Amino acid sequence: MFKCICVDHIGIACENLEVSKKFYTEVLGLSCTGEEDVPEQGVKTVFLPCGETLFELLVDITANNDGPIGKYIAKNGQGIQHVAVRVDDIEAAIAGVQERGAVMIDKAPRGGAGGMDIAFVHPKSVGILLELCAPAKK
Amino acid sequence: MFKCICVDHIGIACENLEVSKKFYTEVLGLSCTGEEDVPEQGVKTVFLPCGETLFELLVDITANNDGPIGKYIAKNGQGIQHVAVRVDDIEAAIAGVQERGAVMIDKAPRGGAGGMDIAFVHPKSVGILLELCAPAKK
Repeated sequence: MFKCICVDHIGIACENLEVSKKFYTEVLGLSCTGEEDVPEQGVKTVFLPCGETLFELLVDITANNDGPIGKYIAKNGQGIQHVAVRVDDIEAAIAGVQERGAVMIDKAPRGGAGGMDIAFVHPKSVGILLELCAPAKK
Repeated sequence: MFKCICVDHIGIACENLEVSKKFYTEVLGLSCTGEEDVPEQGVKTVFLPCGETLFELLVDITANNDGPIGKYIAKNGQGIQHVAVRVDDIEAAIAGVQERGAVMIDKAPRGGAGGMDIAFVHPKSVGILLELCAPAKK
């Protein structure tokens, strides 16, 4: 069994990170608490907490703009690319989701930004790109 | 001045409300705490809390499937249609966002689901459909 704790973050595909960052900081008044390159996913991320949830701004940093975020923007334009739910136990969540008949993209947790273990549910099971995440075990 | 408090809800455009509800309740184990028709927006909504944020499942209930959610799905397929940030003062937020150079779709608050006053920021200002909301004053 596993439990969903909160909406950990909302991943937003951005064309121009500085322009987007300016909106969230200067217009909404949020603070930017971290920036991180995740080269294996071809993205740079910026975190802005809002209550218990982070806005995670994402920009493609691949040479040909063909990472997941570049492809998302080419198809859809800028937008909300994924939502991540924090769970109490990532391995139990991966097993539980599959036992209940849904399909995981990731059958085992992998390392994501912000020191989290992450796993994506297949969009065909839920209709959106849903990430499950939990702080990585030491 | 205004302050962003939390991510109040995430609005998800669904083709089939029962199928989506089944995923959030039976696979993720969330509880459905409310259902509400909002005929003036042509939608039926279902609320499922996850921490301090609600998943707000949205389905078109217009006769020709041409309300905002029907149109969203016709263009994009199912997906995350909007994110709503709860603010401490909706009128101050509408004024503040405009003073800081961004564009509001709603220049005055209007009634939304769940007893909230709501106002949308124009997507050209932020790159996503962003709602600001606050509990309606009695």
